[in-house]
Amino acid sequence: MQTKNVVTIGGGTGSFMLLTGLKKYPINISAIVSMADDGGSTGVLRDELGVLPPGDVRQCLVALSESSDMLRELMSYRFEGGGLKGHSFGNLLLSALQKINGSFNAGVKEASKILNVKGEVVPVTGHDAHLYIKLKNEKILKGEDEINHAFDIEQEGIKKIYFSPKVKANPKAIDCIMSANLVAIGPGNFYCSILPNLIVPEIAKALKETKAKIVFNCNLVNKKGHTEKFTLDDYVDVVERYIGRGKVDFVTFNTKKPSQKLVSKYENKKELLVAFKKDIKKDRHCRIVQADVLSNVCPQYSKSDVLASKRAFIRHDADKLAKILMMIMELGEYENIIKEII
Amino acid sequence: MQTKNVVTIGGGTGSFMLLTGLKKYPINISAIVSMADDGGSTGVLRDELGVLPPGDVRQCLVALSESSDMLRELMSYRFEGGGLKGHSFGNLLLSALQKINGSFNAGVKEASKILNVKGEVVPVTGHDAHLYIKLKNEKILKGEDEINHAFDIEQEGIKKIYFSPKVKANPKAIDCIMSANLVAIGPGNFYCSILPNLIVPEIAKALKETKAKIVFNCNLVNKKGHTEKFTLDDYVDVVERYIGRGKVDFVTFNTKKPSQKLVSKYENKKELLVAFKKDIKKDRHCRIVQADVLSNVCPQYSKSDVLASKRAFIRHDADKLAKILMMIMELGEYENIIKEII
Repeated sequence: MQTKNVVTIGGGTGSFMLLTGLKKYPINISAIVSMADDGGSTGVLRDELGVLPPGDVRQCLVALSESSDMLRELMSYRFEGGGLKGHSFGNLLLSALQKINGSFNAGVKEASKILNVKGEVVPVTGHDAHLYIKLKNEKILKGEDEINHAFDIEQEGIKKIYFSPKVKANPKAIDCIMSANLVAIGPGNFYCSILPNLIVPEIAKALKETKAKIVFNCNLVNKKGHTEKFTLDDYVDVVERYIGRGKVDFVTFNTKKPSQKLVSKYENKKELLVAFKKDIKKDRHCRIVQADVLSNVCPQYSKSDVLASKRAFIRHDADKLAKILMMIMELGEYENIIKEII
Repeated sequence: MQTKNVVTIGGGTGSFMLLTGLKKYPINISAIVSMADDGGSTGVLRDELGVLPPGDVRQCLVALSESSDMLRELMSYRFEGGGLKGHSFGNLLLSALQKINGSFNAGVKEASKILNVKGEVVPVTGHDAHLYIKLKNEKILKGEDEINHAFDIEQEGIKKIYFSPKVKANPKAIDCIMSANLVAIGPGNFYCSILPNLIVPEIAKALKETKAKIVFNCNLVNKKGHTEKFTLDDYVDVVERYIGRGKVDFVTFNTKKPSQKLVSKYENKKELLVAFKKDIKKDRHCRIVQADVLSNVCPQYSKSDVLASKRAFIRHDADKLAKILMMIMELGEYENIIKEII
């Protein structure tokens, strides 16, 4: 039997989780990664060295690396003092490899060898550009970092989300999508990690044309001021604006409720659990795979990454989600773990 | 036949050359490396992160690495812009590994695994201290960097060269010296790379006691204001002040004259070729192995290291020198390549 091709589309943290689960299966994995980040360590490196954003790619490389724990730990290590403060070691590695090899893509390939990566990590574009959002009130948000920290996006409404200058897709990403058996979009920061892949025109076109099953992994929690009021259907609606009506074949949706304490903690920050309002929409075409995909433990992304340890506690369980995706790809085999497909 | 143990004692550039040559032989190599550096990238990392000096260790790791050229190139890559300017990637790697593993020695061990190092690199001490020189006029030079750039040392005369606070030797370094068949001291910056090993009391004691043949690889060129007027005998004299009279068994000394153009270029900077004045000293006990150990080509330490490319052009040839050392260890076998042993 031919090995199946699974493509993930996303950014750093969400893809890290998903890839960690998927890599345990005997499949070809390609991780298409957004290239919009311009904050933190990545932002400084872009500004000072003129490199492409390494942060999201680094996380995917670590997820797929079959090297020693030490090497993976090293990649996630963040310096804590002096001029290096806040820099992730892996970001420095990718920046140096870009400089030595002349292009970010070539640098990522070398990093993949050094880190003994299973599968491949594919930056969605090799072009250097910043993400912009133009709101309906004509206000322009410049850069992923500014967008990430703007909380009036949902209220004002988005007129356009785009890269400037315009970018072309990495041809490798197109090949991966066209030859995929399954494409998994998300989870992740919707405007900062997910859409920065889908707004690249050739990516949207490939997703329209591919024969792969397309799965949208719905986020667990909405983001304040971005997707604060989004239901499952709203997410699918926006995704399909880019990749074509009816193109999302499956949505994975978590049914396990986190502890009330955690939920309240999130709600206090205006981060509400995403709702699935089953009866509201009559013409829903995609199948909603509802299952427990919630992580029971507080997953430790890396003890060396001081930033990561401050991140979300309501998270997907990598193994549970990967199992659902494998089930979708091989329908029938794993049906007993699913609560409902509607 | 039991594999023989060869120990090198020195610093960065000189040891890099020597190890590059030695690693082609089927021997156990241990590189004892000085820990005095406090200038450049290394100095900034010491100050800002509180790590031990990585620079010399890094060069030895690269020399002994059997990894891909890309990984070795990466280790020597120097960032050119922004807050990272001047930092060697390999120095950052060693600093991060020290932080993650809790000690510099443990970090070096992990780096050796990552870089697939043949043999081992042994920091002479795990203590954090700075090198000092007290001149006869009572002036105190603090730190390797200041010493390196002081040009009145020879004129004023040295009263004492020492670490403060006091350091203890890495026990591993003592083991290596005691079980060595041959110990090669130098070449290298005499006060900044060579003596910072020999002034560690336990190291001097081990060199006094070991049954290994001790070879001093004499520098090709004297250093302005440091060893400007030194002859071969002066070098041996100072080395034996630390390790004991009569302890140097062999000295390797280059007989091939570099081009007059190069020699003049060096002389203009008050860097004169080291002389061997055969008849001046009657009671010379060590055997002087005179041979062509000069590099014909301008060796490229690394195209990624912008600093290295500015360094010395009158250099040892790694292969020629290694061959002489192997000959000394296995006396008789390679005698035809030697001009004279007196």
